[in-house]
Amino acid sequence: MQVSDTVEITGHLLDSGILSMVLDDIREYDGDYAIDRFDVGKDHTDASHAWITVTAADDDSLQRLLMRLQTRGVNLVDPGEAATSQVVQDGVFPDGFYSTTNLDTLVRISGRWSEVVNPEMDCGLVVEGEGASLRVRTVPMADVNAGMQVICGAQGVKVRTPEPPRGAGGMFGFMESDVSSEKPQTVLVRQVADGMREAKAAGKLVLWVGGPGVVHTGAAPAMTALVEAGYVDVLFAGNALATHDIESALYGTSLGVDLAQGRGVEHGHEHHIRALNTIRKAGSIAAAVEQGVLTGGIMHALVTHDKAFVLVGSVRDDGPLPDVYTDVIEGQRAMRGQLDGVGFCLMVATMLHSVATGNILPASIPLVCVDINPATVTKLADRGSAQARGIVTDVGLFLEQLALELVENYRTTRS
Amino acid sequence: MQVSDTVEITGHLLDSGILSMVLDDIREYDGDYAIDRFDVGKDHTDASHAWITVTAADDDSLQRLLMRLQTRGVNLVDPGEAATSQVVQDGVFPDGFYSTTNLDTLVRISGRWSEVVNPEMDCGLVVEGEGASLRVRTVPMADVNAGMQVICGAQGVKVRTPEPPRGAGGMFGFMESDVSSEKPQTVLVRQVADGMREAKAAGKLVLWVGGPGVVHTGAAPAMTALVEAGYVDVLFAGNALATHDIESALYGTSLGVDLAQGRGVEHGHEHHIRALNTIRKAGSIAAAVEQGVLTGGIMHALVTHDKAFVLVGSVRDDGPLPDVYTDVIEGQRAMRGQLDGVGFCLMVATMLHSVATGNILPASIPLVCVDINPATVTKLADRGSAQARGIVTDVGLFLEQLALELVENYRTTRS
Amino acid sequence: MQVSDTVEITGHLLDSGILSMVLDDIREYDGDYAIDRFDVGKDHTDASHAWITVTAADDDSLQRLLMRLQTRGVNLVDPGEAATSQVVQDGVFPDGFYSTTNLDTLVRISGRWSEVVNPEMDCGLVVEGEGASLRVRTVPMADVNAGMQVICGAQGVKVRTPEPPRGAGGMFGFMESDVSSEKPQTVLVRQVADGMREAKAAGKLVLWVGGPGVVHTGAAPAMTALVEAGYVDVLFAGNALATHDIESALYGTSLGVDLAQGRGVEHGHEHHIRALNTIRKAGSIAAAVEQGVLTGGIMHALVTHDKAFVLVGSVRDDGPLPDVYTDVIEGQRAMRGQLDGVGFCLMVATMLHSVATGNILPASIPLVCVDINPATVTKLADRGSAQARGIVTDVGLFLEQLALELVENYRTTRS
Amino acid sequence: MQVSDTVEITGHLLDSGILSMVLDDIREYDGDYAIDRFDVGKDHTDASHAWITVTAADDDSLQRLLMRLQTRGVNLVDPGEAATSQVVQDGVFPDGFYSTTNLDTLVRISGRWSEVVNPEMDCGLVVEGEGASLRVRTVPMADVNAGMQVICGAQGVKVRTPEPPRGAGGMFGFMESDVSSEKPQTVLVRQVADGMREAKAAGKLVLWVGGPGVVHTGAAPAMTALVEAGYVDVLFAGNALATHDIESALYGTSLGVDLAQGRGVEHGHEHHIRALNTIRKAGSIAAAVEQGVLTGGIMHALVTHDKAFVLVGSVRDDGPLPDVYTDVIEGQRAMRGQLDGVGFCLMVATMLHSVATGNILPASIPLVCVDINPATVTKLADRGSAQARGIVTDVGLFLEQLALELVENYRTTRS
Repeated sequence: MQVSDTVEITGHLLDSGILSMVLDDIREYDGDYAIDRFDVGKDHTDASHAWITVTAADDDSLQRLLMRLQTRGVNLVDPGEAATSQVVQDGVFPDGFYSTTNLDTLVRISGRWSEVVNPEMDCGLVVEGEGASLRVRTVPMADVNAGMQVICGAQGVKVRTPEPPRGAGGMFGFMESDVSSEKPQTVLVRQVADGMREAKAAGKLVLWVGGPGVVHTGAAPAMTALVEAGYVDVLFAGNALATHDIESALYGTSLGVDLAQGRGVEHGHEHHIRALNTIRKAGSIAAAVEQGVLTGGIMHALVTHDKAFVLVGSVRDDGPLPDVYTDVIEGQRAMRGQLDGVGFCLMVATMLHSVATGNILPASIPLVCVDINPATVTKLADRGSAQARGIVTDVGLFLEQLALELVENYRTTRS
Repeated sequence: MQVSDTVEITGHLLDSGILSMVLDDIREYDGDYAIDRFDVGKDHTDASHAWITVTAADDDSLQRLLMRLQTRGVNLVDPGEAATSQVVQDGVFPDGFYSTTNLDTLVRISGRWSEVVNPEMDCGLVVEGEGASLRVRTVPMADVNAGMQVICGAQGVKVRTPEPPRGAGGMFGFMESDVSSEKPQTVLVRQVADGMREAKAAGKLVLWVGGPGVVHTGAAPAMTALVEAGYVDVLFAGNALATHDIESALYGTSLGVDLAQGRGVEHGHEHHIRALNTIRKAGSIAAAVEQGVLTGGIMHALVTHDKAFVLVGSVRDDGPLPDVYTDVIEGQRAMRGQLDGVGFCLMVATMLHSVATGNILPASIPLVCVDINPATVTKLADRGSAQARGIVTDVGLFLEQLALELVENYRTTRS
Repeated sequence: MQVSDTVEITGHLLDSGILSMVLDDIREYDGDYAIDRFDVGKDHTDASHAWITVTAADDDSLQRLLMRLQTRGVNLVDPGEAATSQVVQDGVFPDGFYSTTNLDTLVRISGRWSEVVNPEMDCGLVVEGEGASLRVRTVPMADVNAGMQVICGAQGVKVRTPEPPRGAGGMFGFMESDVSSEKPQTVLVRQVADGMREAKAAGKLVLWVGGPGVVHTGAAPAMTALVEAGYVDVLFAGNALATHDIESALYGTSLGVDLAQGRGVEHGHEHHIRALNTIRKAGSIAAAVEQGVLTGGIMHALVTHDKAFVLVGSVRDDGPLPDVYTDVIEGQRAMRGQLDGVGFCLMVATMLHSVATGNILPASIPLVCVDINPATVTKLADRGSAQARGIVTDVGLFLEQLALELVENYRTTRS
Repeated sequence: MQVSDTVEITGHLLDSGILSMVLDDIREYDGDYAIDRFDVGKDHTDASHAWITVTAADDDSLQRLLMRLQTRGVNLVDPGEAATSQVVQDGVFPDGFYSTTNLDTLVRISGRWSEVVNPEMDCGLVVEGEGASLRVRTVPMADVNAGMQVICGAQGVKVRTPEPPRGAGGMFGFMESDVSSEKPQTVLVRQVADGMREAKAAGKLVLWVGGPGVVHTGAAPAMTALVEAGYVDVLFAGNALATHDIESALYGTSLGVDLAQGRGVEHGHEHHIRALNTIRKAGSIAAAVEQGVLTGGIMHALVTHDKAFVLVGSVRDDGPLPDVYTDVIEGQRAMRGQLDGVGFCLMVATMLHSVATGNILPASIPLVCVDINPATVTKLADRGSAQARGIVTDVGLFLEQLALELVENYRTTRS
């Protein structure tokens, strides 16, 4: 027996192509639709508003379709009250649990709307407390425990899509269309610099997510200067970025010269493994800095400027460094613990950590991904980080230009 | 004060380009060399033999250079006896520890050569027992414990490079030159099939390393057929391959049809996260098979045919599946535990797990890496898996052709 | 002074995302719009219909915007009569000439609509004859002559967008979304085979556009079999495909064996240049076939099966072969001369010739582009070949599978 | 009956890997070899010297093998006298003609060595005049005429390989190893700048080869500044670079603003085709500059600073511009006509024109190829331009940095 419900969506529906995606979703979930009403703005500054009746084969399918549509900012016209089920098994959600988006989310319980504390995609919603102290927060699957109350179905849940960037000429306005290496790159650098300046001016933190390419492209001095100038508050990375940076710093005389002369030294496993051993012996990166063992580079700058970093391991790691979370779920928890106050996120030269960060980042935080490989940016957007803006360019030259824009006397002091 | 030692190398030195690499290494490590003698074979079936005196600034540099040269199969003319140091701190090697290659390695202690039990790159060599029961084995940095005796320096260590493939027309002979998408691909498929058949005929196991692209390119039926036909003994993968495969199997009716009709459904996080929840509820993949929850796909075939799999997590994972090692170092240990008896390794559509497997695989095991992205193959070779042969091609069509070659009546039974 | 006009568009406007593109175009041309009316179909089988008033700074801008919108299938509500200007200079259109799309186009002159004979993008429309014998045809810029009557402005011109593929499950339905290497490739092969069969069944010709990768990936035998089986009626290519194919055929004994054994011979310029010289000596490819000099390969099969080919040169050519048009504008003319009756077009492993063919192909002809490089497909779509469906895969395996689908006993006869 | 001859080669044979390539060539051509003598330098500043006897199945095969080996700098020990044959057919070389390399080449006739005037790969060698006025020059296949005397076989021909760059730290020393995007990019920019400065200081010309990506990445202002500063003496390009540049200049107000604000306008065919029509109407680019129609951009700067450019068409061209050679063989001739005095060549963002230029450029001219696509650089090296140094980076940022290095007050004057 077919069941249906009516949803609504508001916004620049025709400009944004969002309606096509909504209708695609309905078909993909084997649902059907009829457009009940479509109010179109007279001109392009007006918002449009559509009411759509969606139909599915049974209630379970309908609920799943409705949850899917919420990722597009589509809400039920008559959301009703949220229903909860109790978790009976650690690490397992009840059937029919509401699977979250990374959008701002509101839940209606006992006639009152509560804002979800920490939006994150692919989680469940746990309801805690009652009355005035009632709180709804996202919980990842691995962290759900027996006894928790988890919201099920799409009833009583509403999402808010982020405001689009200010006008057509606004920040990253032009990057929206698609990923391309054929863009005026110097303008892009300036826009990223502006985004960081604005975040800092607003008292927000700048989060960097980086891969070892930062070191290999010779951009470590530029990034170090940006740490010192206060434009790197938090770094998410893996074992590789930190190790390559430290390796550069430790075997500085020879490798430093080589980098400066541009001889492309394939460092060899041997230096790599020895750098790891040295830091393990010291106990931690910070300890190596304190002991005077580590005296330069990105990690050194982060430690001496008291900036946070979260290094999470992967199966291909050597060592790893003692600071690396070898348990990836614990690593995710540590990353989540550093998101508070972040107002801008720059991802550079890493697919793994960019996707991982995209998974946990609220959609409201501006996000720019820089990579010479277009696939990284595409992947990020495919995985649900719709706010991601991609720049396909050379990481070394990009960070050099970014330092020129943001760090006073960068070039003078460097040479 | 400069120190020097004399090394020797035998083989098809001129054909293989190995000597250039050796001299490159010496310069890269700031060493110097003089070629003492060079016996060149009269014709190209004869081996050449070179004696080279290498010089470095101090003994530490020399030892490190000598260890580097061993990765090329260069040994000391007069290796002497191995020296050991005691480990004083868990997880930290003594300074100057011998950093291993993945080549067959011999160590001379008390006048006797012992073969290293389990060659693996970037490890240390631990000496255990004495006299007749003396044993030398590789130990990764994370697993070394205080009190262990670890070999230091290059003295007393000898490596053996694998025999080159049989003749110019031998297996993968033509793939050696370089990574390229412009190769006669059907011939390559046949050679991989032959490699697997030979391994099976020799009573060896076939190890697969796979990424989610196996499922996305529609190759899951081909791989399932290859599991059933006995050509997949062990699978190394991450959370993604298993989850996408299970998602396909669970939401079979709709998604199955979609895949068959070729509609490129981006599964959406919702199905993905629900598939994870279902298996977590069952307790494990095997339990889901037993309970009749999971009835098809690659993972199902592995379970029902009693084949081994090791799934190791990464920081971007959702869920993960209960079978996934969330601690990457424990995951590496589990992978090492499955290498025994492996005689052929096929890597498909994953950079992360391919590099991870390349890190722990002895150089003596033939290794083919298939990916549509040339960078994956290049990366593998750069990281030291010199035996890696790369095929840049479409994973879906490659596995389809491989199943046609290896599985009798594959096409008939499939349609 | 601002000027405006009212346009209309019909179709599955919401599903297709076409309306977003239209509004993007208006903004890009510095125009403005108001949506006068928007009739939305009740369910997703109904067409929508929109009336939009577009405004521009002056008439010239408005006309250019209207012409741009026609590439999206947007027509004036009240098209009026077409205006013409006389060409005063060979090879130069009058200012304000109507720049064509590749859609079916109608022109209203003296109260009667005439269908444009040969739709092609980026041309002008020339009006010839009068009354009943009046004819409108596209003329490329290089071929326009003084005295011709050319249509100016968007008045009196109407376009028809091709019918969308039959239903969501229809041909290439799933490829529409985007270019991706993660698609079930064997299904794609079957769909291309079906497309060719349908074209042949309808008495239409199959046009191939190919690059040298066809030969390098070992797909020449598959393509040769497809020529012999009647699935290649016309080939557009450059000097390289033909020369590499002929080189393979001429130096058959050694290179044939090499290809069969899979040894990746980099042919070297020497064989290449000698193959060219041989055919130049014979006088033409056909003459070389007649003289018994050329006895195998793709070009040989085309000659002996009396199929057409157009080879157009490029600045990097060696030789070239005597059959190659060295003047690219003459080459374009020769290509145009072979479009009659074409009902399906397959582009394989060439960006240059694919874009060139996309430039002259009417939008009504189904078009599939196969390349291992996603950029080729993207470029094609960016240049206006909206009907292009892209398959990112290995050319060698793709053509092998295609031959298996289309050529009876292909595998048997081959081995 | 087997025939053989003895060849010799001098140089840093072991370091350079050249000997492996020579032996690979011999096997590839089904020849055999024996190393008669191998004098190896004591240390790595000494040159090595090898004498090798090569054997082939018959004299024809031997001659072809010897010609192949010359591309590696391998010469006959006893070269003898060159043999010539008369051309009997326009555009066709005699069988067994000597196919040239791009190395400095000497020919021995009547007991005297003559230097080939204009080394170019894949050509024939034509002997003109006699005695003191005897001259040997390369002639491309398309330009050979009946009656000319062409050298056949490898006898009497000797090549000289270019001196290797000055020491390990010399120009581009580090780029030699391989193509990679993981290089310290700012150092690379400086080295290219130094290369240009040195060429200018030596009174040589700087040749640029460019694709439309120069304009699309926003690098037109940087390149224009470099033209004005005298670092662009000759430009080789196609219709696209010039048209996109002119389009930018002509529709400056709107598009200029867009580029400055970074909105990624896909220009649309309409502007493109109109820009072409405008220049065609003017008669030529220079005429458009004179008439005040074209007032900015790269092409304008070239015209006003009296610099040379050669635009050669391709089959995908619209228009084309009146300055474009539509006949590719004539285009090649025009390019050859501008090589005199060139001392440095920079190739940016074009595969087609880079390969075309590589085909005709002597190996003695330093050559740097910059592209975001590694395949362009690889292709160039594969085609025989062994001197090509590749930089895989973003073209926009690269040229911006290059202008910063070379043009005084570039940034100040620009903003």
